[in-house]
Amino acid sequence: MDFERHFTDQLSALKAEGNYRFFADLERVCGQFPKVRNHGPGPDEVTVWCSNDYLGMGQHPDVVAAMVDVAQSCGTGAGGTRNISGTAHHHVALEHELADLHGKDDALLFSSGYVSNWAALSTLGSRLPGAVIFSDSLNHASMIEGMRHSRAERVIWRHNDPEDLDRKLSAYGPDVPKIVAFESVYSMDGDIAPIAEICDVAEKHGAMTYLDEVHAVGMYGPRGGGVAEREGLMDRITLIEGTLGKAFGCFGGYITGSKALCDFIRSFASGFIFTTAIPPAVAAAATAAVRHLKTSEIERMRQRRQVARLRERLDRLGIPHLPNPSHIIPVMIGDPVKCRMIADVLMESYGIYVQPINYPTVPKGTERLRFTPGPLHSDADIDHLVEALNGLWKQCALSRQVA
Amino acid sequence: MDFERHFTDQLSALKAEGNYRFFADLERVCGQFPKVRNHGPGPDEVTVWCSNDYLGMGQHPDVVAAMVDVAQSCGTGAGGTRNISGTAHHHVALEHELADLHGKDDALLFSSGYVSNWAALSTLGSRLPGAVIFSDSLNHASMIEGMRHSRAERVIWRHNDPEDLDRKLSAYGPDVPKIVAFESVYSMDGDIAPIAEICDVAEKHGAMTYLDEVHAVGMYGPRGGGVAEREGLMDRITLIEGTLGKAFGCFGGYITGSKALCDFIRSFASGFIFTTAIPPAVAAAATAAVRHLKTSEIERMRQRRQVARLRERLDRLGIPHLPNPSHIIPVMIGDPVKCRMIADVLMESYGIYVQPINYPTVPKGTERLRFTPGPLHSDADIDHLVEALNGLWKQCALSRQVA
Ligand SMILES: Cc1ncc(COP(=O)(O)O)c(C=O)c1O
Ligand SMILES: Cc1ncc(COP(=O)(O)O)c(C=O)c1O
Repeated sequence: MDFERHFTDQLSALKAEGNYRFFADLERVCGQFPKVRNHGPGPDEVTVWCSNDYLGMGQHPDVVAAMVDVAQSCGTGAGGTRNISGTAHHHVALEHELADLHGKDDALLFSSGYVSNWAALSTLGSRLPGAVIFSDSLNHASMIEGMRHSRAERVIWRHNDPEDLDRKLSAYGPDVPKIVAFESVYSMDGDIAPIAEICDVAEKHGAMTYLDEVHAVGMYGPRGGGVAEREGLMDRITLIEGTLGKAFGCFGGYITGSKALCDFIRSFASGFIFTTAIPPAVAAAATAAVRHLKTSEIERMRQRRQVARLRERLDRLGIPHLPNPSHIIPVMIGDPVKCRMIADVLMESYGIYVQPINYPTVPKGTERLRFTPGPLHSDADIDHLVEALNGLWKQCALSRQVA
Repeated sequence: MDFERHFTDQLSALKAEGNYRFFADLERVCGQFPKVRNHGPGPDEVTVWCSNDYLGMGQHPDVVAAMVDVAQSCGTGAGGTRNISGTAHHHVALEHELADLHGKDDALLFSSGYVSNWAALSTLGSRLPGAVIFSDSLNHASMIEGMRHSRAERVIWRHNDPEDLDRKLSAYGPDVPKIVAFESVYSMDGDIAPIAEICDVAEKHGAMTYLDEVHAVGMYGPRGGGVAEREGLMDRITLIEGTLGKAFGCFGGYITGSKALCDFIRSFASGFIFTTAIPPAVAAAATAAVRHLKTSEIERMRQRRQVARLRERLDRLGIPHLPNPSHIIPVMIGDPVKCRMIADVLMESYGIYVQPINYPTVPKGTERLRFTPGPLHSDADIDHLVEALNGLWKQCALSRQVA
């Protein structure tokens, strides 16, 4: 087989569809976020409007100081897997902090949120004999791959629909081990799951609940424990999964749950066992971020203000965006080529960086610009963005929506 | 189902077998490695003898300075996936450095070596229609899980046996896309693959070659490009995979290969696309480590000296270890409970930390202590280790081997 030819052909097909991806080549500047240095096409300085460092914690002085201190005191890497010389005191401390955040007995760190979902679901699905996983139809790729890898039976229920979940669960007898897997904030549409109703249904059927709070940790709940904390539901969720790479501004993922559950995953998950632990300096930085957001409301308050402000300005101009109760503002374009073109103009003519979100991140036909206003976007940043969009909407004769 | 009960039962079974894992709770101290602070049972300071920070690069001043500088200038996290605001200039620079290291046109970073193997092999196996993967029987868990995930047909060939590989390849017609997947240094036995012979066979059958150099990068070859570099074979390998978490002292994984190959994986691998990029500060630290080891031989030379010295001392005392041509010295125990007991005594009575290597990292019955002497182990450290082992061998009447 001519491998090179095959690779090139597949890439050409992507390009023809408009789904080939170009990465922006950026350089964050501490203290100036969301303004960043741009090494690609466009102005030298641009404003990031699509970061998942939702609260700007990646440049918080305490978080940076923790990384710097531990890099200087302990070095740059863990030097091994958690079992073979790679456990640092900083990993242990972070696991305590995360267990406390979610009101659970224990927590377990992974290389990333992706790996935590993949490893936890593949281990549960394969090591609970006869288990069936009931998966929300819009679950993240990392959960899907974990379920797929487990080879457990998988049943898809209608997105955010507890009644459909109830019907699907009813088809299985009481002795079948059942796992209900879902997210709190869905990152591309920004909608939020009806967690209480899902727990009611899961409990009725004796199912365990698996909740991905990746886009909610740090952001919702009085201590940043996520939507389940805000709604007083953490104790009804068997396993809460999160990331340190988004609102906590660092890197890594985790699960929290009972001691036995975490110990079980720790002991059997290939994706946990056979890989180098995250750098102690990263763990220390994440610990600082988690701690800070347990008591500080100012980042969350200011973010909410800016999200509301951008929504209101878009509404006034009739620029259509998906309504939702979260911090994510999806402006729908519906075509990959147009989506990229608008993003390119925003970047090159206005210094506004918003990545076009195309397939496979979202289904074809639902291409969008996804804005994530944060506490560090100024009112002037919002004005500039809205004026740019307004101009583009005129120029390209894009459709408007009357409120 | 009573989930808690199931978890507890499975953990009890592990404990009864002697395969339950206890993590050492350590704290590295920059400048003092391999001496570390011990937060668990045993003395407050212990010497690590099982680190995969093989050359101590995790505390190299240039590497630490790079992490500190970039944490201070850019913050702690990437803030997004590579596609959505997460590509930093430091990722791009590291990819150039790695492509150059292996004499390839391009490179692609992943969250870890585990993820790079899993994502690359699962993508190749699933996206080359009808592909068959020919896998060395001792390949690492991350490769096995990637192949399994791909659902491609997998054929296992006898460990390090090109003749067996040839026979297995011969059973498939010329039109079947074939991938030969293997490692250079096998981390638990420390043996090294006959790369040239494997390439001969693969080329004869038109197969692409996939080589994991995780335990070799930084350590072998004049520029630390691995065993394939040492043997002048890099251009015969289609894809070279490595880690930044072992000899480079940091965190993260990568593949290198042709532009089209890397772009193909970049464009289609779920495990690359849907996850936060590694922190720019980690990428910068890794870049500094790779650069340093491209020109500095002193770490490699001194490591080789200490490896030879420990081997020679063990031989003199008849303490049996697997002979191999690498930097890894496995002292075989063959029983999980005994292996843990010896490790506990070494830790608690001698301040020597070597993790017992039990199932599932090695097959049952081949439990071992795996020593990785580095350039920073002093001759006195070696003396102390050898005396401790000698005492234990006497005390426990363990068998000796006459040279
Ligand atoms: C819902 C969801 N879960 C998990 C992840 C993976 O988390 P991480 O970026 O830490 O790998 C993401 C995005 O990256 C996500 O959107
Ligand atoms: C052969 C091999 N490949 C890959 C890996 C994974 O690399 P990383 O630790 O960077 O995930 C390991 C060990 O961890 C390994 O031994």
